Amino acid sequence: MGTMSIDDIQITPLRRIETIGGDILHALKHDDEGYAGFGEVYFSWIKYGAVKAWKCHTRMTMNLVVPLGQVRFVFYQNHAQYLIKEIGEYHYNRITVPPGIWFGFKGLITPQSLVMNIANFPHESNEVERLQKSDFDYSWD
Amino acid sequence: MGTMSIDDIQITPLRRIETIGGDILHALKHDDEGYAGFGEVYFSWIKYGAVKAWKCHTRMTMNLVVPLGQVRFVFYQNHAQYLIKEIGEYHYNRITVPPGIWFGFKGLITPQSLVMNIANFPHESNEVERLQKSDFDYSWD
Repeated sequence: MGTMSIDDIQITPLRRIETIGGDILHALKHDDEGYAGFGEVYFSWIKYGAVKAWKCHTRMTMNLVVPLGQVRFVFYQNHAQYLIKEIGEYHYNRITVPPGIWFGFKGLITPQSLVMNIANFPHESNEVERLQKSDFDYSWD
Repeated sequence: MGTMSIDDIQITPLRRIETIGGDILHALKHDDEGYAGFGEVYFSWIKYGAVKAWKCHTRMTMNLVVPLGQVRFVFYQNHAQYLIKEIGEYHYNRITVPPGIWFGFKGLITPQSLVMNIANFPHESNEVERLQKSDFDYSWD
């Protein structure tokens, strides 16, 4: 699954521009560091308290942005080492995740939070590996 | 401003996949009709009752998706002809808008709706023309 580690994950602060009628939120430009090509953009809702874990993309680089709500992302290195990042409207950042890293996420805000993934490959089920939540010892509670 | 008319605007139904923990919403793939290249993804919030109008992108093709709320988009052809499309979580579609078309939009849901634009060019202020809301005779009320 390559040689990527959680040290290769990038966190980029994003601009939120106050605008009459509703704010403008930056997400990703083609010349930003972290841009890895365009395959697909899609959204994942995550309900308050819900956990989606664990997945590992073997080829996809993810660019994750949370315009609404707040989400905890957990990236697995080994049983003693996880990278934990909370992003969302209260900490508006983009997380760039190279392929080969196991991750999960949890919704921290009621009723639900919205995750956008700008992926360099379109979704393919055979590009994703999955494990049960209990397969790693991270405590989500 | 080219030869594009409101007849060149494309409406594409999008899939919403029911998922435990929170639904998955498709938005745009690189091989979808309407994809015009990747320059930037950004969000615009639009408050209930607020109107943002009028703008015309001279070079940008927009791909507009509303994952949260409901938004009325109005595209101007001439003083007697407008194209009106309402999209959002209750009518989950993508609108592809070629350059050279005047448009505005209004938030239909409290407290606010979220518009994503996947643009083939990054934002440049000199690529956008602007008029006052009152410069066309469309009634937003």
